[in-house]
Amino acid sequence: MEIYKKKPILSSFSHDQKLSHQSKHLLLELYGCDCEKLNDESFLRCTLNRAAKLANATVLNLISNKFEPQGVTAIALLAESHISIHTWPESSYSAVDIFTCGQNMLPEIASQYLIEILRAEEYSLRVIDRNPPAAVFKQIRKII
Amino acid sequence: MEIYKKKPILSSFSHDQKLSHQSKHLLLELYGCDCEKLNDESFLRCTLNRAAKLANATVLNLISNKFEPQGVTAIALLAESHISIHTWPESSYSAVDIFTCGQNMLPEIASQYLIEILRAEEYSLRVIDRNPPAAVFKQIRKII
Repeated sequence: MEIYKKKPILSSFSHDQKLSHQSKHLLLELYGCDCEKLNDESFLRCTLNRAAKLANATVLNLISNKFEPQGVTAIALLAESHISIHTWPESSYSAVDIFTCGQNMLPEIASQYLIEILRAEEYSLRVIDRNPPAAVFKQIRKII
Repeated sequence: MEIYKKKPILSSFSHDQKLSHQSKHLLLELYGCDCEKLNDESFLRCTLNRAAKLANATVLNLISNKFEPQGVTAIALLAESHISIHTWPESSYSAVDIFTCGQNMLPEIASQYLIEILRAEEYSLRVIDRNPPAAVFKQIRKII
């Protein structure tokens, strides 16, 4: 697994270039993050919400849990699947996954936003193609 | 990616042999599932709860959403990370992820349970090692 130094790359992303027409699962490890942010449940809820919107996703529900003495988990249930973040402030580490299934999704934008907002010094990002039947992409769903 | 025919393998798992001392992320694709079960939100909530318990995990919160005309998402927030299931009954397909971080976790048992309970004819399972700093495994957390 390659570890990358953080670069300010959010602004370099072109929405048009990065449109996802597949079902992707992004696994993101963030190292050397801002410890205080990783322990701030309210901040992380807002951050996940913002990341989802940047990914062109619709948040249907958002839950979180604060652990003692430290650490937070927050998970956003999306119309297009989910985003989760699990933090270990004592190790300045956070594990994120972004699963998107649908056209016009921008999971990489959400990923870059999280790298920047949590001030990760290093990160690794793995983009894994999920393998739904082709018909899944043709379905139209309503949110109730 | 290899696709496997379903075999009744839950009973062949030995708890002692499968103890996980790592941070693992299981990505499971289930094909040819029972359509009615994939559209039953209440059943899927119970199923996720049971899968978490089989994995030696503690469920702290569980959310779900029913889509129209069909499909369900359910996500369990665990003391040890999370389990999610997203279903497309019209394609008999379901995408699961099981992220566990902690000693004594049995994510493979949860995976096999889901393969069996949803009557998947075929499946693919990818087990991906996450890469937290070693200190993460030494932390003791309390649930508040």
